[in-house]
Amino acid sequence: MTTLDILGIGNAIVDVLARSDDAFLARHGMAKGGMALIGTDQAEAIYAAMGPGMESSGGSAANTCAAAAALGAKVGYLGKVADDTLGQVFRHDITAAGVTFPTPPLSGGAPTARCLILVTPDGQRTMNTFLGACVTFGEADLDAAAIAAAQVTYLEGYLFDPPAAQAAFRAAARIAHAAGRKVAITLSDAFCVERHRDAFLAFVRDEADILFANESEITALYRTPSFDEAAAAARRDVGLAALTRSEKGSIIVAGEATHSIAVVPTTVVDTTGAGDAYAAGFLAALAAGRPLPECGRWASVAAAEAISHFGARPQAELKALVAGGA
Amino acid sequence: MTTLDILGIGNAIVDVLARSDDAFLARHGMAKGGMALIGTDQAEAIYAAMGPGMESSGGSAANTCAAAAALGAKVGYLGKVADDTLGQVFRHDITAAGVTFPTPPLSGGAPTARCLILVTPDGQRTMNTFLGACVTFGEADLDAAAIAAAQVTYLEGYLFDPPAAQAAFRAAARIAHAAGRKVAITLSDAFCVERHRDAFLAFVRDEADILFANESEITALYRTPSFDEAAAAARRDVGLAALTRSEKGSIIVAGEATHSIAVVPTTVVDTTGAGDAYAAGFLAALAAGRPLPECGRWASVAAAEAISHFGARPQAELKALVAGGA
Repeated sequence: MTTLDILGIGNAIVDVLARSDDAFLARHGMAKGGMALIGTDQAEAIYAAMGPGMESSGGSAANTCAAAAALGAKVGYLGKVADDTLGQVFRHDITAAGVTFPTPPLSGGAPTARCLILVTPDGQRTMNTFLGACVTFGEADLDAAAIAAAQVTYLEGYLFDPPAAQAAFRAAARIAHAAGRKVAITLSDAFCVERHRDAFLAFVRDEADILFANESEITALYRTPSFDEAAAAARRDVGLAALTRSEKGSIIVAGEATHSIAVVPTTVVDTTGAGDAYAAGFLAALAAGRPLPECGRWASVAAAEAISHFGARPQAELKALVAGGA
Repeated sequence: MTTLDILGIGNAIVDVLARSDDAFLARHGMAKGGMALIGTDQAEAIYAAMGPGMESSGGSAANTCAAAAALGAKVGYLGKVADDTLGQVFRHDITAAGVTFPTPPLSGGAPTARCLILVTPDGQRTMNTFLGACVTFGEADLDAAAIAAAQVTYLEGYLFDPPAAQAAFRAAARIAHAAGRKVAITLSDAFCVERHRDAFLAFVRDEADILFANESEITALYRTPSFDEAAAAARRDVGLAALTRSEKGSIIVAGEATHSIAVVPTTVVDTTGAGDAYAAGFLAALAAGRPLPECGRWASVAAAEAISHFGARPQAELKALVAGGA
């Protein structure tokens, strides 16, 4: 196994994006900006009601992996698709993005996961995830050699939802640490944090070396309305944290140091994948040995690219974009 | 059967769009800007080599139908998908666009057609079509009641490629004319015109009431390097022709009259679907009883919207766009 800069582990999902209005979200009882888990019947009902779609590979950690590879990092990914059409699409896209993807597909079980994403005119995205084959991702799917060979193993918080995956990613963290590697996690979603708060808190305190979260996620984790209080708690609990605040930029807290990072101005078309792209820029710059403020700048450039178009994965030449502002 | 403004008949295809460079096209022997038919092996080889994709429903006449429906026209569509995942995606998208789609899917045969589209940095698209289930579309799939109920039956020239479809669309033209309705055709692609030139010429002269073509298609049809000569020939052969010239705008020739239509300025991101959108704007305005120069303006507005984003189907509110300039 060649050395990897980043190994991502996450729910392997194909996105179905459609434009929507706020009334549609209200009619279907969706919490705007959040991610809800849905079953087969609900997936069919929402799909039947939603507008024309665009399919593209998604999955939070997978998006991060694709963008980090575009920024020059050597990247691998573990996640479970089925051996169906959407599974082939997912495998093609992540491989074509330059990411190693060794996880074998699931045969004869649930179909490949899909996320029905409604994008409102304000650019906000509301996600409905049918986990499908992802619920079978477990310890047997952990590629121990790949984890031990990766500088950073990056885990998405959404993995707390499927129980087998939660066990698997704890095991992945043990393998990474035993090999002297680092473990990064993103909190993913405030509702997901609420669902699994104690487990999240224990993982952040005991296992995580690097933490990514946005304002609603970090305040949900620490049960405080104050971003500053939550940031102070993160500073105590984890060695390095990157905390994002949408248009207010982000801060990087590392021990006693705090770095404020400005946003890169752009027109908001669709926020799908913004956080994933931020983590990609940060981790790719870190792997390239850049100082923390520069990691933050790469993160902001990648996030701005993600929100400037419809869909989660990069569409522009990210390498050129980060080089342009260096 | 309710009265329809437009009934489209075409190859029912799901697009797979990826960004590419000119070297990729050269390496795979692709004629830039054209549409080539490919078999299963070639489809697999090109897909394996191409970059991360975005899947969305396509098909020339289907794109026209979706955009015309967005402009307020009552629209139906006939075309053949398989009963597989991509076929479900196609059916969902065209139905969600407000288009009636009565053609039953093919069971147990070839899969749903797909078009591998490479978009180069200049916004030009190069298409590779695997026809799959489309080759089984035949006279049995003609919904005679729908054709007789439609003001205009709109046929894509690509239907000359699958032999059964060619027979079917001649039959569709007969049904339409017997019901006192009009028949429109787009030449679709200069290479397609070269493949079936005599059949195209006979159809334009004997069956078509309305003709859509771009400069390379109309000059291929009439075997002349001169656009003006080709336009004069079209004026003789068909009652109404809309001839497009990319950034030079378009002309509408109708008997002795000629209307010059300006382009609507926009940034070219991806020309996929530009001609389809032009036909949609034209036919929707015609159905709404607008005079020919206004039909041309709707056509130009819809085409500009199509080339301003990645993918063939409309992403903005077309109705508002045409109203804005009225």
